Amino acid sequence: MIRVAVVGATGYTGSELLRLLVVHPHVELAAVTSRTEAGVAVATMFPQLRGHCSLAFCAPDLGQLGECDLVFFATPNGTAMTQVPALLQRGARVIDLAADFRLRDVAVWERWYGMTHACPELLAEAVYGLPELYREAVRTARIVANPGCYPTAVTLGFLPLLDAQVVDLTALIADVKSGASGAGRKASTNLLLAEAGESFKAYSVNGHRHQPEIVQTLAAVAGVQPTLTFVPHLVPMVRGIEATLYAPPVGDDALDLQAIFERRYQHEPFVDVMPPGSHPETRSVRGTNLCRLAVTVPSTSGVVVIQSVIDNLVKGAAGQAVQNMNLMFGYDETCGLCAVALAP
Amino acid sequence: MIRVAVVGATGYTGSELLRLLVVHPHVELAAVTSRTEAGVAVATMFPQLRGHCSLAFCAPDLGQLGECDLVFFATPNGTAMTQVPALLQRGARVIDLAADFRLRDVAVWERWYGMTHACPELLAEAVYGLPELYREAVRTARIVANPGCYPTAVTLGFLPLLDAQVVDLTALIADVKSGASGAGRKASTNLLLAEAGESFKAYSVNGHRHQPEIVQTLAAVAGVQPTLTFVPHLVPMVRGIEATLYAPPVGDDALDLQAIFERRYQHEPFVDVMPPGSHPETRSVRGTNLCRLAVTVPSTSGVVVIQSVIDNLVKGAAGQAVQNMNLMFGYDETCGLCAVALAP
Amino acid sequence: MIRVAVVGATGYTGSELLRLLVVHPHVELAAVTSRTEAGVAVATMFPQLRGHCSLAFCAPDLGQLGECDLVFFATPNGTAMTQVPALLQRGARVIDLAADFRLRDVAVWERWYGMTHACPELLAEAVYGLPELYREAVRTARIVANPGCYPTAVTLGFLPLLDAQVVDLTALIADVKSGASGAGRKASTNLLLAEAGESFKAYSVNGHRHQPEIVQTLAAVAGVQPTLTFVPHLVPMVRGIEATLYAPPVGDDALDLQAIFERRYQHEPFVDVMPPGSHPETRSVRGTNLCRLAVTVPSTSGVVVIQSVIDNLVKGAAGQAVQNMNLMFGYDETCGLCAVALAP
Amino acid sequence: MIRVAVVGATGYTGSELLRLLVVHPHVELAAVTSRTEAGVAVATMFPQLRGHCSLAFCAPDLGQLGECDLVFFATPNGTAMTQVPALLQRGARVIDLAADFRLRDVAVWERWYGMTHACPELLAEAVYGLPELYREAVRTARIVANPGCYPTAVTLGFLPLLDAQVVDLTALIADVKSGASGAGRKASTNLLLAEAGESFKAYSVNGHRHQPEIVQTLAAVAGVQPTLTFVPHLVPMVRGIEATLYAPPVGDDALDLQAIFERRYQHEPFVDVMPPGSHPETRSVRGTNLCRLAVTVPSTSGVVVIQSVIDNLVKGAAGQAVQNMNLMFGYDETCGLCAVALAP
Repeated sequence: MIRVAVVGATGYTGSELLRLLVVHPHVELAAVTSRTEAGVAVATMFPQLRGHCSLAFCAPDLGQLGECDLVFFATPNGTAMTQVPALLQRGARVIDLAADFRLRDVAVWERWYGMTHACPELLAEAVYGLPELYREAVRTARIVANPGCYPTAVTLGFLPLLDAQVVDLTALIADVKSGASGAGRKASTNLLLAEAGESFKAYSVNGHRHQPEIVQTLAAVAGVQPTLTFVPHLVPMVRGIEATLYAPPVGDDALDLQAIFERRYQHEPFVDVMPPGSHPETRSVRGTNLCRLAVTVPSTSGVVVIQSVIDNLVKGAAGQAVQNMNLMFGYDETCGLCAVALAP
Repeated sequence: MIRVAVVGATGYTGSELLRLLVVHPHVELAAVTSRTEAGVAVATMFPQLRGHCSLAFCAPDLGQLGECDLVFFATPNGTAMTQVPALLQRGARVIDLAADFRLRDVAVWERWYGMTHACPELLAEAVYGLPELYREAVRTARIVANPGCYPTAVTLGFLPLLDAQVVDLTALIADVKSGASGAGRKASTNLLLAEAGESFKAYSVNGHRHQPEIVQTLAAVAGVQPTLTFVPHLVPMVRGIEATLYAPPVGDDALDLQAIFERRYQHEPFVDVMPPGSHPETRSVRGTNLCRLAVTVPSTSGVVVIQSVIDNLVKGAAGQAVQNMNLMFGYDETCGLCAVALAP
Repeated sequence: MIRVAVVGATGYTGSELLRLLVVHPHVELAAVTSRTEAGVAVATMFPQLRGHCSLAFCAPDLGQLGECDLVFFATPNGTAMTQVPALLQRGARVIDLAADFRLRDVAVWERWYGMTHACPELLAEAVYGLPELYREAVRTARIVANPGCYPTAVTLGFLPLLDAQVVDLTALIADVKSGASGAGRKASTNLLLAEAGESFKAYSVNGHRHQPEIVQTLAAVAGVQPTLTFVPHLVPMVRGIEATLYAPPVGDDALDLQAIFERRYQHEPFVDVMPPGSHPETRSVRGTNLCRLAVTVPSTSGVVVIQSVIDNLVKGAAGQAVQNMNLMFGYDETCGLCAVALAP
Repeated sequence: MIRVAVVGATGYTGSELLRLLVVHPHVELAAVTSRTEAGVAVATMFPQLRGHCSLAFCAPDLGQLGECDLVFFATPNGTAMTQVPALLQRGARVIDLAADFRLRDVAVWERWYGMTHACPELLAEAVYGLPELYREAVRTARIVANPGCYPTAVTLGFLPLLDAQVVDLTALIADVKSGASGAGRKASTNLLLAEAGESFKAYSVNGHRHQPEIVQTLAAVAGVQPTLTFVPHLVPMVRGIEATLYAPPVGDDALDLQAIFERRYQHEPFVDVMPPGSHPETRSVRGTNLCRLAVTVPSTSGVVVIQSVIDNLVKGAAGQAVQNMNLMFGYDETCGLCAVALAP
């Protein structure tokens, strides 16, 4: 058993983390913090947790957090970086579900996130928590930067193509679509059901923070800087991300891409390469830590098309965080993450 | 006043056509046909028409149809082509909302639609009813092939780029998304609310019938055959199409694409080029014959990104058909098509 | 032509009013006010109005408003009452879409709305704008209190039963359901798509402000105070209200309730009594000013069950306001309100 | 470990049962039958089961089924009754998720279900599988009639009121609302997303098969026949039932209904009586076997109002079936049913 705290658990990544942690056999939930909700029972704010969690939110206390084995940050961007150094000193390990430790280049981070980084010296140490790429480093990490939701779906889709060096890296396109929970649990007019329901649109076409995160990982794999056009869209549903990825093939067009994908992910517990001709639906991963992929090369154009679906709150956030926790503390990587998707 | 019939009005394009025709000031609705529903009051099947339409469905009768000035076919693919020759002989003009007359190459048509064409000799005469491209030909046409929903959204988005010869035609990508009404009003398990609701997926990645239709039009404009990757998706909503189009620029990158789009569509009553930075939402055109467009070139990649939204049942079907009717009979092109979008 | 202003047009009732007014043949829109958005083009905030409205929001100016023939208030509760007296003095007439003038008993109003009324002396003069009940008074009114959305659906459903004195007034039940736009366009966490989507719940079971408004009208019709249990629910959709009403019958059970309903509403342009066995759907009135009703007496219990559907933003707000405007200025009551419902 | 078969697993209750059974620690899934899909891998039809179930559908075989410890029927009404007698003879026990064994009066059953019952002699033996009422009988039952979804939500809501004899049984009203999955996975035009999405309606107002089932149970508890008005509605969402129940109080109005409810369900693992003032949401039980209840007496009318929410596919079908299985075979009643609800 490890003692675990969740800092800032009033949003969707926080509540989803609680959903997974309260039934995890190796976790003792020591504290759930929220400045604004201190004193309120967690199950009052999140009735779905009635009967599963008797804690109340408490104000964050460095002493208490520092005594935990692991502290999750489910806070807005810019919060974890102010508290992580002190926690590391006290011996706690950290998984940040926000963006504070995702980019290695502090200048890029500060440009996209519009603030000064509080502990740039830790960026090099932080491990990007995509187990399919950095599993071994995660095991011993003190700081895990949990990937963003779009980057998880997009990176897992491009990875085998980059590994196999079979696509033109100067012309990658990621057309991604997310349910509304991806925007977080904040009162925002444009995310009201009456605004975002029964409608569809792109957003942030001119640039989105997840773009440099994806490019950083793809560059690390490919050894060169790729050119990526990344356009996110808002889907009138609650959960789920679908990414449709386009990449022009290079070289031998007799390549068996299906085999390349299956081989790359054959030992991955949470990546499912579906049979040729499949059309993965977001509901087929709802509530699970899975990424389901399909690869197609339409004969009309010859461009490689990858479909990638995840649950943005699970593999795209809280589930991947638990997967990282399992790795960090030597538990079975799939522990607490084996539920079947809720479909329909 | 013209006498008008609607053949096969039990689907969504048919009922939408009725919605528009019953309030059109120059239309006398002479017959609404359906073999299966003959004798049933139209307003019994479509309660939204109570008080607006007192007709009952009748079995199609060539004599009666032939006496109309205009016959709309809102039938499945393959029906109109069996009846159009006889109607033309009797002096009626025709707008087919299905695909029978959309492709000029009968071999291509027969390959994609899986049947033998009944009147290939009429394909050359039929006018593709996209007024923004073929307005003058529509005015005098005997047969108008009303464009498909995806082709309308995609073609209007690419058109100015092709006119201006500013993009690489060998690498066009159209990532398109449609509400469920685009699949028609047929009992199909995979379109049940409990299947398609709260989920998102691509479909027909390997090839979709709207691909050759789009390519035919783009080729006619560009003078060369473009290479297009076209991937449709199903959005958990009822109405609306959003197309996100990607095209690598060629030549002078100081081009003012916003000006190119605004100039191309400055006199078009149903194409709205939105200001730079816009993100058109499908609800902003709901129930209207409008296509709203936005053009962006994200600095991170330099690729041209076009967003295009329409209501699939209006500009993507029935509304465009009424626009064509207005042109064919010399009415104001916007007559009966001036409602404001229903948003929220 | 009349000169009309809309005060506080940044919410849903305001934008819906604009949708109807910009195409109304007898209306010149003189001003659209908003303190917070002054200077912003109306069509920038509401892209659906692009091409239909060239005004910008302006700060409310008593002089300008007072010169209008009619001022609509689409403001939060408590705003209209502070401005109406001055406007009346200047000769303008007023339709308030909020609740300020709906209740005749100022003590009841102040208890439910939690504030002191600014002009209680005008409550007796204000006409409750339900044309099906108070048509003649509306014609000459200076102040029309436009009914609430739930009260419109519920009152029109109960009215014929009360007129005919065929139900027990001590046991009325109204189980009502509304789409999310009924809660207004305000940033509220619990109305986010990710909160209210794919879920259903009752709310305000202990008491809702529309209860005294309904009871006041029913009492005026019945001559006695009825006892009403009123429970509202939130439906995961954008528009529409469905009210299921229950009333135990009294007296002769051979009564033909269908005939009673049809007779009561035979001359009403916006109330549609559907045939026996009907199940009115909210989409059958979407975007229209219609109320569709069905009456049933299930043999298992003998209780009278009324189904009533409206579009909460049209017959439940802006459309009824335009209907009242038509009455006040001697136009055809249905002018500008004849669109067919948008279904699907 | 018990050997278990699921007959007719291509619908929603069947696939939901598989979701629960494949991770149940005491279940060996011996056969999943479907005549129409025989030979197809279960995970091909239900991709959410990929990695969890390697069986293919097989044609039902009496020999194979008879060797199982337990056979679930997730078939249409009228199927189980033709096979159950033979299975009982071979020693298998049965849980029928359809309606074949729910009504004790064969005449009533035949009237509502429109067919002749194949084994009326077994109706008296079958146990109605509502553990909160018939737990002890379920333990030893050979045939469990798993309750309908509406009856579960409604009965659990009324039960404490009937036990305590505090309401007037001649005036019960149940206004119930269900997501679209409640109608099953059959190709039906009126359940298409494009028909049932973004709309709300009542249905079967004149009479629904779940009415006699509810009345039978309430009568058994109360000792007299109650009069119930039962009106179902279709909600534009996938899962979930909300029942709003109305009952006029009788006798002492100082009764503490909250205490009555809490006491009645204090030992029930799957019934959660929420605090006064609560508004249970269907999403708070999504994917779980829970029924959450709230009791209110609005001061304006004094009528008792109960809100009851369940997941129609879990507590309303497959979850309750697993709960019954656990009871029948001596496992912990909550085994395999402890997941936290998926919210948002």
